[in-house]
Amino acid sequence: MAPHGEGSEEALVVQDENRKPISSILFVIAMQTEAMPVVNKFQLKEDLDPVFPKGVPWVRYHGIYKDLHINLVWPGKDLTLGVDSVGTISASLVTYAAIQALQPDLIINAGTAGGFKVKGACISDVFLVSDVAFHDRRIPIPVFDLYGVGSRQSFSTPNLLNELNLKVGKLSTGDSLDMSPQDEASIVANDATVKDMEGAAVAYVADLLKVPAIFIKAVTDIVDGDKPTAEEFLQNLAAVTAALDQAVAQVVDFISGKCLSEL
Amino acid sequence: MAPHGEGSEEALVVQDENRKPISSILFVIAMQTEAMPVVNKFQLKEDLDPVFPKGVPWVRYHGIYKDLHINLVWPGKDLTLGVDSVGTISASLVTYAAIQALQPDLIINAGTAGGFKVKGACISDVFLVSDVAFHDRRIPIPVFDLYGVGSRQSFSTPNLLNELNLKVGKLSTGDSLDMSPQDEASIVANDATVKDMEGAAVAYVADLLKVPAIFIKAVTDIVDGDKPTAEEFLQNLAAVTAALDQAVAQVVDFISGKCLSEL
Repeated sequence: MAPHGEGSEEALVVQDENRKPISSILFVIAMQTEAMPVVNKFQLKEDLDPVFPKGVPWVRYHGIYKDLHINLVWPGKDLTLGVDSVGTISASLVTYAAIQALQPDLIINAGTAGGFKVKGACISDVFLVSDVAFHDRRIPIPVFDLYGVGSRQSFSTPNLLNELNLKVGKLSTGDSLDMSPQDEASIVANDATVKDMEGAAVAYVADLLKVPAIFIKAVTDIVDGDKPTAEEFLQNLAAVTAALDQAVAQVVDFISGKCLSEL
Repeated sequence: MAPHGEGSEEALVVQDENRKPISSILFVIAMQTEAMPVVNKFQLKEDLDPVFPKGVPWVRYHGIYKDLHINLVWPGKDLTLGVDSVGTISASLVTYAAIQALQPDLIINAGTAGGFKVKGACISDVFLVSDVAFHDRRIPIPVFDLYGVGSRQSFSTPNLLNELNLKVGKLSTGDSLDMSPQDEASIVANDATVKDMEGAAVAYVADLLKVPAIFIKAVTDIVDGDKPTAEEFLQNLAAVTAALDQAVAQVVDFISGKCLSEL
């Protein structure tokens, strides 16, 4: 999602796009607990005339805040098991379907993450992510190995970063809440400060469909700490979601009235 | 993808659907090397008026064979790296987009897989998969753990199985070509005979959109054998693809003229 090289016709189109005021934001959020504060903050309403196919559990909320059309999608509850449809596959699918239906100017993937204290992360820290990659797609064949890691830069937002008091770090994504030794080695190789279960998948789809994406991740648990991840995650989820909510509100206020090149 | 419970209106609709002759098959195939023999066998043509969004690398081939409309999709080459877009995310996306565009009666996910000799798999064996699950989505929170494993039954095809000389086994899916000890423990828990990088993801999307799906997997490498997976996989890919191709042809010939409930 880095800006394209200049000089080509495509680059000029991208430059023009980057100079139009942002009018439509798409939030992709994995869990209901993470989504509802944002829904409430911006007084978003649930979609009554769904843009998604019949039968899928995906939920869209939408509304207008200042000059921005805000859409928020989350993958909903698993139809059989009733838990939030977390992880890369659901996130990819709902991101794809939402981009197709809503044609947003900017995607914001907001959510909770594990943090590494060795890289400076503390509980309730909110990170603006600089780079994303996968840590559980090991394909030891030349070039396929790079495809598996799927390293991508977030859309560059230097002014947003200067203005707001957010930490910056790299994000590593995998479909497990725990961390195996192989995952850990890949996370170290990815130089990641935070670890989630969706970010790099959202980045992959956004890149595929040429929509700029940024990633705001709040730390619910310290991966290299003493407490078991699942326990710490559930304990901190509600409180950290409030910190995330506040950061998201600041980011949206900053975006309002600006074009992509001003972020 | 097991048939729904009887007695509901939905169940009656499903029963009716199962009694109509199958008219449209969708192949989902991850790699070009696996796809081309099937394309050639059924003389499928590449789509000139793509049903997929502009910019995505996904490729559709289509044609008519006997009484069947055959579509074949593969996720294409990664736009940056040029390798086949393997793994669960690409497979999920292309399956979703193809179902939406083509409304197939039946999905066939055909491809290569690693096999476990301890479960009776040999190089070039072709398996008709009874069950699929993931082995790299560990979420140790009650119910989320089951969601992560994502165990699903294939569409039941007892007559197809009686008629053709295919082995039957369970399939476990993950995004790595290698196998970590954690993956191995999950694969054992999944009671899997074959291991791939797409099947359970295709099953998830097919289930979400209520399309029956079957899985035909040919063994390119013995996971619990002496040779490194990547080397054995590349060595056997072309030869095993021929065995897969033959099995696929037999399956399509069997399907022709039948309805879902006769499979």
